[in-house]
Parts: sequence; C-alpha cells; structure tokens
Amino acid sequence: MRHVISALVQNVPGVLSHISGMLAARGYNIDSLAVGETENPKLSRMTFVVVGGEKVQEQVLKQLQKLVTVVQAKDITNQKHVERDLMLMKVEALPGARSKILEMVNIFRGKVVDVSDTTMMIEISGQATKLEGFVEAMRPFGIIELVRSGIIALPRG
Amino acid sequence: MRHVISALVQNVPGVLSHISGMLAARGYNIDSLAVGETENPKLSRMTFVVVGGEKVQEQVLKQLQKLVTVVQAKDITNQKHVERDLMLMKVEALPGARSKILEMVNIFRGKVVDVSDTTMMIEISGQATKLEGFVEAMRPFGIIELVRSGIIALPRG
Repeated sequence: MRHVISALVQNVPGVLSHISGMLAARGYNIDSLAVGETENPKLSRMTFVVVGGEKVQEQVLKQLQKLVTVVQAKDITNQKHVERDLMLMKVEALPGARSKILEMVNIFRGKVVDVSDTTMMIEISGQATKLEGFVEAMRPFGIIELVRSGIIALPRG
Repeated sequence: MRHVISALVQNVPGVLSHISGMLAARGYNIDSLAVGETENPKLSRMTFVVVGGEKVQEQVLKQLQKLVTVVQAKDITNQKHVERDLMLMKVEALPGARSKILEMVNIFRGKVVDVSDTTMMIEISGQATKLEGFVEAMRPFGIIELVRSGIIALPRG
C-alpha cells in the first residue's frame, strides 16, 4: 500500500540525511519526496510517499518520531486530504504540431511558460494521475525533458 | 550564492540517502529539494537548491558525479531557466473574511481546492518570490498549515 507521510522538521543541516539514511537502512524505497519551507523559517515540511504494508508504515512513523530534528510526523493516507504534484515538461513543438499541443494543454489546464522555434515548455499541476495522463498525451509529440516536484498534501477541513 | 542543481538519478533505494549524506558530511545545507518521477520509470529527477560560494557548488557537483547512482548532474543557475514551486495552504476563513481572501487568491492566480465552515485550502504555483508574497498576504487572516514542494526547474529553449 501507498502511504503519504507528512513531517514537520527543524531546518538544520543533516535532517534530510538522518531521515533518508534511516529509511534506506530499513530498505524502504521513497516514491517521491518534497521538502519545502513553511510559514516559520525555522521549520520545513517534508512530504513523502512510501510503499509497503501497515508494518512498514508503523515503523517509519515510529523511527521518524524518535529523531530529535523531527517536530511532528503523521500518516495522512487515511484522512481526507488534498494531494498535488507539479510538473514542468519540455516537448518538441515544430510549427505544425503546436496547435495540437495547445489543445492538450487546455484540456489538462496546463500553462505554456516558454516557447522556442522547435520546443514548448509546459507547467501543469494536479493529482499524480492527471500528470501521468498528460505525460501519455504528450509522448507522441516527443518529450525532451521533464521534472516533477513529487506529491505535497494537506488534510481537508 | 544560491545554486539550483538538477540531477537525474537511478530510481533505487538508498540514492537519496547517499546524496543527502554526502551533502550533510560537508556541512552544505539544502534549502529545498524535490524528487519526482520522470518519463522513464527507472529514473528520478532531483532538483535541489544549495547556498554557498563557487567552491561549494563545484564540490557538490563533483561529488554527485562520482556517485554511480547519479546519471547526470548539472548546475543550471547560470543558464536561462524556468523555476516553479507549488504550495497548498489552509487559512482561517470565517464567512466575513471569505470575499477578501478570494480577492487575494484571484490576484495571485491561485485556486481554492477545499472549503469548510471556518477554513479554505488554496493551491498556488509560481516562482518562489510569488509564493512568499502570497504567504505575507494571507498571514493577517491566519495561516493554519502550509506545505511547499520546493523548487523544480528546467533550462529554457
């Protein structure tokens, strides 16, 4: 099963290394990880997705809660929550293909953020499945490069 | 100086731990980090921002390029590139404050993704400075929780 874990951590060198070392030592693979600032400059929030059974998830949470640099860690998978992922994609866009690409970008509610003679760069955010749909829709045109942020999530209500 | 480093890495357990351990051992602090899938299921792309002089940046790149799990690593700070960051924010929104909050959300081109009796959740993407502007604009209403993805970036053209 896929678990979305959200942890509030101190913004000090080494905290990421502690956490990723702990996960690697136990053989847990991290599907995605996003680490960003919060409204408090002393704290960062890490959102990560790990795949494994109930036991894996329990152990990960326990180990996280043991680290002094971790202020709070919770599994929000079973709470109602909103998940978002962000992607930048550069795609081949010769003049003949542009209008077809733009049509797809509009359907998926993306934004064109850069254009050159032969390429377009598109920004798109949404649930991971939507981004995966967009990747498949763009594949025939020729994806040159893409980057994703990994999932971020907040509980609803 | 702030450096934006983009690395294509093998999607295997331990790669994040190698990289963050190497950075921590040298005392480099990571300002933000985003790890996400690419169009190739065997590879992930990591985007991270480190702060330090030219020397720091050179050493980080060299050390990264030494790791077998790192397919490619480059500093794109001095190339023309597009940077984006994604944020989900939950803010206090009693009925009297809602229209003022919506006005701000429209100015910053955010999206409301959830509403409860007393709160609103907003999704917003853009350059880090725009997101920081939005945080300041929302602070008087009462920020309950926020999460950011960290920066992702792609070279232009």
